[in-house]
Order: sequence, then structure tokens, then C-alpha cells
Amino acid sequence: MELSSVNNNQKVTVEDAFWSNYKQLVAEQVIPYQWKALNDQLPDTAPSHAIENFRIVAGEAKGDYYGTVFQDSDVAKWLETVAYSLRSFPDSELEEAADDVISLMGRAQAEDGYLNTYYMLVEPDNRWTNLRDNHELYCAGHLVEAAVAYYETTGKRAFLDIMEDYVELIRSTFGREDGKLQGYPGHPEIELALLRLFDTTGKREHLELAAYFIEQRGQEPHYFNMEKEQRQSLGAPSTWNDENTNFRLGYAYMQAHLPVRQQQEAVGHSVRAMYLYAAMAYLARRTDDAELQAVCDALWDDVTNRKMYITGGLGSAVNGEAFTDAYDLPNDSMYCETCASVGLVFWAKQMLLLSPDRKYADVLERAIYNGTISGMDLDGKRFFYVNPLEVNAYQVGRKDQEHVKQERQKWFACACCPPNLARLIASIEDYAYTQSKDTLYTHLYLAGTVQTTIDDVPVKLKQSHQYPWEGSITITVEGTGQFRLAFRIPGWCQEATTSVNGEVLAIDDMEQGYFILDREWTTEDRIELHFQLPVMRVYSNPKIGMNQGQVALQRGPVVYCLEEVDNGKSLAGLRLPRESEITAAFEEDLLNGVVILETDGLKAAESEALYQTDSPVLEPVRLRAVPYYAWCNRQAGEMRIWIHET
Amino acid sequence: MELSSVNNNQKVTVEDAFWSNYKQLVAEQVIPYQWKALNDQLPDTAPSHAIENFRIVAGEAKGDYYGTVFQDSDVAKWLETVAYSLRSFPDSELEEAADDVISLMGRAQAEDGYLNTYYMLVEPDNRWTNLRDNHELYCAGHLVEAAVAYYETTGKRAFLDIMEDYVELIRSTFGREDGKLQGYPGHPEIELALLRLFDTTGKREHLELAAYFIEQRGQEPHYFNMEKEQRQSLGAPSTWNDENTNFRLGYAYMQAHLPVRQQQEAVGHSVRAMYLYAAMAYLARRTDDAELQAVCDALWDDVTNRKMYITGGLGSAVNGEAFTDAYDLPNDSMYCETCASVGLVFWAKQMLLLSPDRKYADVLERAIYNGTISGMDLDGKRFFYVNPLEVNAYQVGRKDQEHVKQERQKWFACACCPPNLARLIASIEDYAYTQSKDTLYTHLYLAGTVQTTIDDVPVKLKQSHQYPWEGSITITVEGTGQFRLAFRIPGWCQEATTSVNGEVLAIDDMEQGYFILDREWTTEDRIELHFQLPVMRVYSNPKIGMNQGQVALQRGPVVYCLEEVDNGKSLAGLRLPRESEITAAFEEDLLNGVVILETDGLKAAESEALYQTDSPVLEPVRLRAVPYYAWCNRQAGEMRIWIHET
Repeated sequence: MELSSVNNNQKVTVEDAFWSNYKQLVAEQVIPYQWKALNDQLPDTAPSHAIENFRIVAGEAKGDYYGTVFQDSDVAKWLETVAYSLRSFPDSELEEAADDVISLMGRAQAEDGYLNTYYMLVEPDNRWTNLRDNHELYCAGHLVEAAVAYYETTGKRAFLDIMEDYVELIRSTFGREDGKLQGYPGHPEIELALLRLFDTTGKREHLELAAYFIEQRGQEPHYFNMEKEQRQSLGAPSTWNDENTNFRLGYAYMQAHLPVRQQQEAVGHSVRAMYLYAAMAYLARRTDDAELQAVCDALWDDVTNRKMYITGGLGSAVNGEAFTDAYDLPNDSMYCETCASVGLVFWAKQMLLLSPDRKYADVLERAIYNGTISGMDLDGKRFFYVNPLEVNAYQVGRKDQEHVKQERQKWFACACCPPNLARLIASIEDYAYTQSKDTLYTHLYLAGTVQTTIDDVPVKLKQSHQYPWEGSITITVEGTGQFRLAFRIPGWCQEATTSVNGEVLAIDDMEQGYFILDREWTTEDRIELHFQLPVMRVYSNPKIGMNQGQVALQRGPVVYCLEEVDNGKSLAGLRLPRESEITAAFEEDLLNGVVILETDGLKAAESEALYQTDSPVLEPVRLRAVPYYAWCNRQAGEMRIWIHET
Repeated sequence: MELSSVNNNQKVTVEDAFWSNYKQLVAEQVIPYQWKALNDQLPDTAPSHAIENFRIVAGEAKGDYYGTVFQDSDVAKWLETVAYSLRSFPDSELEEAADDVISLMGRAQAEDGYLNTYYMLVEPDNRWTNLRDNHELYCAGHLVEAAVAYYETTGKRAFLDIMEDYVELIRSTFGREDGKLQGYPGHPEIELALLRLFDTTGKREHLELAAYFIEQRGQEPHYFNMEKEQRQSLGAPSTWNDENTNFRLGYAYMQAHLPVRQQQEAVGHSVRAMYLYAAMAYLARRTDDAELQAVCDALWDDVTNRKMYITGGLGSAVNGEAFTDAYDLPNDSMYCETCASVGLVFWAKQMLLLSPDRKYADVLERAIYNGTISGMDLDGKRFFYVNPLEVNAYQVGRKDQEHVKQERQKWFACACCPPNLARLIASIEDYAYTQSKDTLYTHLYLAGTVQTTIDDVPVKLKQSHQYPWEGSITITVEGTGQFRLAFRIPGWCQEATTSVNGEVLAIDDMEQGYFILDREWTTEDRIELHFQLPVMRVYSNPKIGMNQGQVALQRGPVVYCLEEVDNGKSLAGLRLPRESEITAAFEEDLLNGVVILETDGLKAAESEALYQTDSPVLEPVRLRAVPYYAWCNRQAGEMRIWIHET
């Protein structure tokens, strides 16, 4: 079955209160804000210098390179975000600014197609000598993704041409043929980008180069060992990764410990893992490779059934920003980088395209409503890099937990997360639908429209609802003929009803969690889906030691948390009785409009002794929970998702 | 009130099943084992080279220095242990070996009294240039403590003379007078040692030097800043502490962030803190300094009411092996170094000598029955440096938790803990009693005898019991006259009864937790104390987030734990119902004879999903708990103290 996403050129429109808000924020706040950041126009924040680096390379400014070795990728992600945002928010001034940056890139590009400001300014003689650490191919990948997106939105080829020239150079440099470097990137990204370039251009050599990078990974003799020896003879500058190499995780840090087909467990840096696994799934689809698909499924099982936070957060340890062992999911010291959850969304989409199974969409939805958007405040100006599930007063002084900020920050020296989240939000509609020849799959409930052709029948669906706060979804059909519509019944939903044109249908024709409506459709047919949205008490697997005896609250896809601003200090001392009824109510003026939860709880009274034989005195309190993604938008303080249950 | 300990020259004998066993282990296993270690005669363990370093300095062997900068202190602690052990286990061969080492030290000592093998061999021109990091005064302190102990047991002056010469050099080097260095040690220890030297020799200059080191600490301009500048001009070799200096904890790392009288919170490296606070309390007693005593009490309150594990373990973070914020007591990633709990015992003893208050003895007892002896296996051959309260399967792969060993190790490159624990056990009787002019205080229930003079009446008490397993204590009195006997009613004891010569007495005359018997005594008077020893469920302060909803089991002073060998894997999935009756039974053949606990519990059934709305299915299991100190003596595996309660 050939699946494709339905995501190009305004085929999907968003008229969704929740996401329109976010998309508008990206268009009106985040893009201009990040533009200022890239141009060093933000006061009191770490400078970016990212645009200036290109100017210096182009000979249009004087100065030295500044920034991380992957500073170029911030510009790329900004351009990619702009490309998506222009689909919903045309803005000629913005497009002009983007064109100017693209034009600057063209002037900065070397004669032979090379384009990386770090190497061009700092180590001009050392191109491709440190694939392990220096993100050269990673930056190229982000630029390719941006170029593809920009071409797809605007039809302008300039950026795509620049990047196809660069990719040509990369192709002539890397591969198994004699005389080529048999390397691959320490940080995956270009693989995914090349597959997108293949999809857009139809040029098979892009797919082949992606396949090379994926399959070469982890082969012996190990390229990074050879490269290191080579580099020592060159006298190239040392990097952050020469001491305490790979955080003592070995090449597992970068998922290069084994050839990818032998990988069965998620290891190492979680963002790198997501980008690699997404590319593997993409390649498996494009090459119809069942073996590679099985590898992706084993990895999916490992991540989502053993190593994922309830928020869709990934990465249990700051050391290597990495996965650790199965069921090791500490809530306060974890990493849970915004980029990792964004990457999980990318991977989930690729898995859905391989095979429309609710389990992928459930995780995708979990990540987008929780661990991704928690990375940005509600006015789009401050960001979390690390998304804790629990913030305690006593963590403040811990030097080993300095990565866990208790408030969102304005900008980061390593600014990967804000633009990554921005490009996800700006393109959120690309994650709502996929289709096969005869079926349109609805994965996400995103109010708005989708237009496509199913079995040669032009079809338009229109979703209306107040999801995720309400569970009543109305879908109107435009299009006449026989085709199949598949609607995801979310995994969290234990009671769903449906009707077509008022006629109640039994939800019995289910395929992998999708309710299939296969019939002759007529324009103005009206489908009603109703998902019961009770407040759910969620329990962890007994092997997650740190969550035992605790419960999390979830309603629909939204995970809730308690904040100090609502519940006072010492949140760990709160207790939620098993039998307490929890009420949900929409509060329009709170946090841009959210459903909040309230219930009767208990709180352990303060006491002096550290240890005592009297069990804590529990006093009645009213508990108030807000959506996790919106925490720390009123005031900083304690927060926790997992609540002790009595 | 002048208090003194009753601890010199066989005044206290031990005929206690529990502690005789340990003391015999130290005499028969640990001392010979550590002697082999110091002489590099242990196969498959990190070499010590500690004796060889002295031989090289003395010109009796060739070679280079090897070991940490404080390698000398391992020899010192061994000699100190030998000194105590000889009191109960005379051993002429051992004493001869000790005399030989002492004689070697004499030959190694420099003309001017200096004695530190690291500096003499590695940096002969750099004496006293890195007090911050290089443990020079720390080693001197341990040697002084050993010399005092050896003199007190054997009456031989050789070691004491060597050390008094060295101390004379130190006195001529350090002080506030012009031309002297105004320094003090990065790692406290010499302060305590000098106070002991004062007590033994009566020479007030030793007390004054101790007072100088204590009071100079943390004064501005900061000595370690000046020393650092000085050192840079000398070109002295860099140390472990030049990068990431003081683990980014500032001078709080070594409790030198403020003058000691301004310190109100326990901070930094927990072993350093314990040695300093013990010395401060000692000085306060010897100088009758109420202000300094109040500082000690504030620090005591902070440690024992906010920063101490239920085991008497200290140090919540591996970073700096340090205290963190109040109530931050993670059970699996903590430090809880054996030496820190040993240091807590030293400090508690000094506090008891300042003021006989049960709160000090309760902590002392907690530490000795739990977090100190957990550091050694039951055959005295393997040691924990770090004493976790919880070991989970999923921690094994965490590089940031490599300090937490899941099994005791044979020896350590940094071998501070084994000899520190050995010297504590060998002198455990020194912690049982203190006395004032008219009162003999019994703090610890240690079967055996104590002989002393109270109000000029010669008195001998004999304790008989099976403590800590049984709570019936019989004390027979030898001595005739009026004197006061004070018996600690342990803080954990909620029901105690007492009788004298069969006549039941109401426990009403209590002073700070001590039951006072003030009467005319006659030889053969017989006191019976009976402490009820129910199994106690212990709860944490609500502010200790990580222990909420959990309970620990304690019986008498002994804290219990669950081990995988008894209870299977996934201990976090166990539940102890609030109403389950817990039975205690002595098992003679288990773990050298221990009371074990059994009860009906529940265990969460295994499930696939990471998160689910069904609460875990709980299946009945029998739970079996063993004393924490004895864990990991059968097989390695999971362990936990805090158990989820339902």
C-alpha cells in the first residue's frame, strides 16, 4: 500500500481555535522575534551572529565567526518556518527578507557548492574532517529541508538550486566508491532532508545518497575511528567531544554503535535518534523495505513502551542528553529536550505513512499537545530547552541539575529548540492526514479543511470542533462517489459514538484503531464523531519506579499538572484520593482559554521531624490542575505531573 | 558542667554479640586485609603503595610516589585501628608490625619534623602551597590521631614524639603572627586531632593551634585565593581541583565560604563538614564557648532535621560529594559516603560531650546500626564507598550514577572508607558512655562493662542483653554510694519500663531523654530496662518529595530494606498495605543472626503499556525485609528501603 501525506500547498487549512492561535503566534511573534535573534537585535540575550556569519563569508562584513558549529542551522530552521507560515499568513515583507537571506547564502556559497560558515571562516582547510562532532552535514540537511519547504510554498527555485549544488558536492564527496569518504554525520538530519529533496525533485540520486548515509552508519571499520586518526595528523582544533568522548556512551551516543539494521533498542542522544529513526522509516517507505520497517517498529516499541515520558518527552539523562535504560524515567533530572519531542512527531508521521496505525498517531498527538508546545510560553517569547515533569524547590541549588531551568529563557546560546518548535507549529496541518489510493486517514482533529483526490474523486472535508477541549467533531463532506474515510478513534478514548447524517453507526469496522466509513458519499454528508472526554487517571507501568503510587491526570490528549501558583508549595505533599471526583471546566480567560481540573485533595501538614512514626496528618485542600503545556505562564514555582494517590 | 568521655584504656569492655562480632572481624579480617592492601599484597585490587611511599622517603626503597595525595592517611587510619583493636585483642605480632611502621615513619621524617610522603617525593619544594587541595594538614591530622590512640593503648611514646615534632613545625608555620602562613586545611581533620593531642598531653598550645585553624577558616581576604595566586607564580603542578574548581560550589565545598561562627547551614562536601563540625564542638567544650556551641547546634539541627537520610547517610549529590538543599534526599543517586556517616558519629559524640541530650545519641545510634556498617560486608572483605538507599535495575547503564556500585568492592584507589569504618568499629565502646562529675550517662546499649569513678565512688556497671534484637537490658551495679545513673530512653522507643531490684519504677525523672536514677547504690543492685521493640512504620517529612506515599520499616535502631533475593525484581512495584501486620523473628543462621521482618504485601502485576488508565493489578505476595546494613551479603540485585504503602 502506497501512502502519502496530504500536506502540500494549502491543501489543508487550519481554522482551529487551539492551533490557529499557535500558528498566529509563530507568524506574528516567533518569526519576527527569531529574526531579531538571528540578527543580534535582541537586548539582554545571548547573541546569535548567524546571519552575520553568512555576511562575513560573502565578503560583505568584516569580523570573526561566532556561535556553535551548527549556527547555520538556526537560519535554516527560521527559513523553513517562514516557508510554512507563508502558506497560512502571506507576508510579502517577510518573504522579501527570506529571499534576501537566500540571496546572501547564494553569495556566500563557494564555487564548488560548499556552504558552511563555520568551516569557511574558521577551518577552511578542514572540510569533512570531523563529521563526528561538527554538524557539517547536519547543517546541510537543515538547509535542504528549508529549501524544499521554501520551494513548495513559493515555487521559487533559488534556494533549491543553491542546495542542489551543495548536495552535488556532498554526493561527489561521500559514498562507497573508491576515492570517496565513507563517512556519515555524527548528528543525523541530512538523511531526512535528502528524502524530502527526492520527493520534491523526483531525482533518485537524492534517495540513494540518503540510503548511503543511513546504511553506512555504524559499519566497521568504524569511520569515526579512522577520521579521528586522520584528524590528529591534520592538527585540526580539538572539540568539546575530544575529552569525555561521546559522554562515555560510545558510538551509541550517536546511534552509530551498530549498523542501523541491527539496532533494536533506542540509545544515545535522543534528538539524534529521532532524526535517524524518522529517516529510516522514510527510506523504508520509499524503498518498500520490510526489513527496515521492522527495525523501525522494534525501535518504536522500545521508545514508546519503555523510554517515553507521559508528555511525549524523551531523554532520561542530561549526560549525553540521552536515553538510558528501559523504565528509567526520573521526573526532575531528565532532559526531555523540546527538539526530541519535535523529532518524535517527525518520526511518528513517517511511521503513519508506512502504516496507518493508531499507535503512531496517539504518540504524535501526545507529543504535540504536551512535550513540544511546553517548550514555548503562550506569548511566544520564552522557551524551555529542557521540559521537566516536576520542579521542586530543593532542586535550585543542585549544580548537576542546572540544565533544568525553572523558568523559560529568552534565547539560548545553543538555540536549536525555539526554531524547531516554530517549524513544527507552522506546519502542524501536515500531520493531520495521510492517504492511500482509496482511503483518506484523519489522524489529528484539527478544525479546518482538507482537499485531495481519493480514487480519482475530488474530495474536501471540513472539520468543526473545539478540540482538544470538547470531543464533538463534525465533519462535512464535499465530493460525490465511493471512497473510504478513516477516522482515528484515539487510543485514550474509551467511549466514542458516531453518526452519518444523523444515523448512528456502530463503531465496528475498525482497522488498526481507525473507524472506516466506506460508502457512496454525497456533498453535504455530515459525519459526527463524539469522543467522551472524562478526566482520566493515568498510572505508570509498575517498572517505572519513580511514578509508583502516583497518578497523572489527562483529559483527551492533554496531560495536566499542578502548579505552585494554584496549589501552594510542597506539591509532593499533596494527595489525590482515589475516589475524589474531578471536575473539568473551560476557563476562557485563563492561559488563552483552557479546561482546568478541580478536585478535593489532601495535603500533608508541615512537620518538623525528618522522620516520624506517625503518618503525615492530611488536611483537606482543593486541587487545581492546568494543562502541562501551559505551565509557568503565570509565575515560576513548583510544578508536578505525577500526584500521590491515596 | 564538665563532661568527659569514659573511653580510655580498657575502662569499657565489650561482651556484646552484635559488636563483638564486628570487632573480631576488624581484628581478624580487616586489619590483616588492610595491612596487605597497604603493602600491595592483595591480588586483583588497586595497589595502595602507602607503606612503600614511606620506605622510598626513608631511602630504604627505590621508586616513585604512587597514590592519591592523601595516601599517608590510609596508614594512619590503619595504625589508629590497630591501636583500638589491641585494647580488646592483644596481639604482639600485630603490635610489632605497627611499631615497625612507626619506626619507618621516624626514619622518613625530615630533620625539621615534616612528614608527608607525597610532598617529600613529588613536590619537595612546594610544601604548604596547596592547602586547598592537597590534604597535607589532613594527613598530619590522621597521623596525630593515630599517634594519640597508639600512645593511649600501648603507653609507647615513639609515635607521639614523631607527631609532636611535626606539630611543632606546623605551629611554627601557621598562625596569625607575622611571618606565618595564615592558612588552614581544605579538608578539616587536623583540628580534631590537635584537640585530642591536647587532651592527651595537656599542652595548651595544641588546643590553641586547633582553635586557630578553626577560627581562621573562611576569613577574608580568603587564604585560598591568595594561595592560588602564589601557587601560579611557583609553577606548582595543577590538581584535580583547578578545573571545575570546588565542583562549582565555591568555598562552601570545603565549609570555608564564611568564618565558622557565621555558618548556620550544612553545606559542601559532607565528610569535610563532619570533621569540621566535630572539631568545632570539641573546641566549644574545651573552651566553654557558648556561642560556638550554639553554632554547632544550628548546624546539627540543619543536618539532622533537613539533610540526613534515615540510615544516617549524608551527602545528597555526587557533585562535590556534598550536601544539597534542605529536603533533597534522592535515594538512588545520592552519595552517602561511609566516611560521612562515620564522621557523623564523631560529631554526635562531641555534641553528647557538650550536652547529654538524647537527640545526639539517637542520631549516633542511627548511624552506627545503619549507614556506617552498611559500608562493609559481613566477612570484612568488601566495602561500599557509597551507600544507596535504593538500587534499581535501570540504574546500571547510567554513566552519571557510576559512583553507586551495586556490589561492595574489594578495595578502592581512594581508600578512605574501609579504614575509617574499621577505626570506628574497633573503638565502638568509646561511644557508649559519657559522664559528668556526678552522673554516668549510658548512651548506647552495648553489652559488657564500664568502670569509672563517680563523685569519688568507684563504679562498675555491667550490661547484659541481646540488643539490638531484643529490648530487655539488665544492668548490674558494682559500687556503693550515692551517684546518678542516666540511661537513654531511645527516641524511637515509645514504651519503656524499668525496675531496680525488681521494683518497677515510673519513668518520670527524665532529663533530655535520659532516665535518671539518683540513689544510694549497693553492689549487686540490678537495673532492668525494657524497651518495646515493635516494628515501626516510619514516614518522611512531607517536604521530602521522593519518599512521599512510602514507608520505611525500623525496629529499634535498625532500618530494614527489601532485597531482590527475597522479594524478586521490580521492588518499586511492591505495596505494603497500611493494615498489614508485620512479624519479626530472629534467624540465627541468616546474615550472622538477624531479626527479619515478614508481612503480607502486594505486588503490581507486570504489564506492557507504559501508561494506562487501569490502576495496576495488585497481587498478594509475602514481603521479607532484612536489616539494611546487611544488604548485598547474599547476592547482588535490587534493594530499597522506602516501600510504597497502600
